[in-house]
Amino acid sequence: MSYSPLITNLIESLLCMPGIGRKSAQRIAFHLLERDRQGAKILSRALHDAATNIRHCDKCRMFTDSELCNICISNDRDGATVCIVESPADVMAIEDATGYKGMYFILMGHLSPIDGIGPEDLGLNNLENRFNEEDISELIIATNSTVEGDATAHYLSGIAAKYNIKASRIAHGIPLGGELEYVDGGTLSHAFFGRRDME
Amino acid sequence: MSYSPLITNLIESLLCMPGIGRKSAQRIAFHLLERDRQGAKILSRALHDAATNIRHCDKCRMFTDSELCNICISNDRDGATVCIVESPADVMAIEDATGYKGMYFILMGHLSPIDGIGPEDLGLNNLENRFNEEDISELIIATNSTVEGDATAHYLSGIAAKYNIKASRIAHGIPLGGELEYVDGGTLSHAFFGRRDME
Repeated sequence: MSYSPLITNLIESLLCMPGIGRKSAQRIAFHLLERDRQGAKILSRALHDAATNIRHCDKCRMFTDSELCNICISNDRDGATVCIVESPADVMAIEDATGYKGMYFILMGHLSPIDGIGPEDLGLNNLENRFNEEDISELIIATNSTVEGDATAHYLSGIAAKYNIKASRIAHGIPLGGELEYVDGGTLSHAFFGRRDME
Repeated sequence: MSYSPLITNLIESLLCMPGIGRKSAQRIAFHLLERDRQGAKILSRALHDAATNIRHCDKCRMFTDSELCNICISNDRDGATVCIVESPADVMAIEDATGYKGMYFILMGHLSPIDGIGPEDLGLNNLENRFNEEDISELIIATNSTVEGDATAHYLSGIAAKYNIKASRIAHGIPLGGELEYVDGGTLSHAFFGRRDME
């Protein structure tokens, strides 16, 4: 049966969202049409505005609607420390959870030779320019704990050494509240051999 | 930290979709901005078009973009049988799964005195008009198997009797492939006492 092309089109378009399959798309489409057309119109506007106007910060590559993002233009933050993450969502997570008051640099990915993603794709030349121009003393490397994230972290620490900048990697180990019994072997082994003296 | 208001706005707007919480909304927003801006623009357009132009069919209350829906204007369908469902999604499910070739009437809800939803809110006066004007011989009641759905089905069978129209209710029982052991007691009891002679 062919429904109104507007509905078919809406369901198809909803599939571009991650984690939304055909059933969910149909459910969302009908929910919006039955109960929340105002919400649908507001969402339509927000999607259009964001997709059209959001760009990357010239300095840290975070999403922003102007040349520099709110963090880079802020005067309250410590410009001597730069935290390097893979994606803008990581910045949000760190901002929400920690009291970190330094700057960021967002790679928008990780080194992955197999996909043809090299240092220049991650904007590492921009980062090196910052090392030259700004007075940066510490690099906090917060790439993901994956093979690619680790390789990227290693590469970054090499650059940091070249500029005589202290580089650290955020700690990996047992999550808070985690029970040893249920933690995977890799994490447990890492935590075991990376043990720290108690003060 | 305050991000670009366009991003905050996009995340807030995504929350209007059922099943999408704040974490998922953030993930969707970043995914679209990082990897699929074209998809975001297409979705924006589709949402706007559907929310603005989709209306209810004058005859069966299905979603459509013209006065009558594709099913009601079709010449290939049997106008003597009307299947009554609670929502447009039910029409889609029946169309996809069964070979049903009759007409529909969509209640857009069920009788619920506690929420102030009476027969006129379900468009039952329109339905009675159809009973008067059209040559309808059978009503297939496919409301949900809930207390309200059952009450609505009962009410509908009363109307059908008034117009001398045969009314049937879709069968409830063990789902195909269902194992007795795992079926809930209510369903099993219903299936047991509603047993049918084998041909």
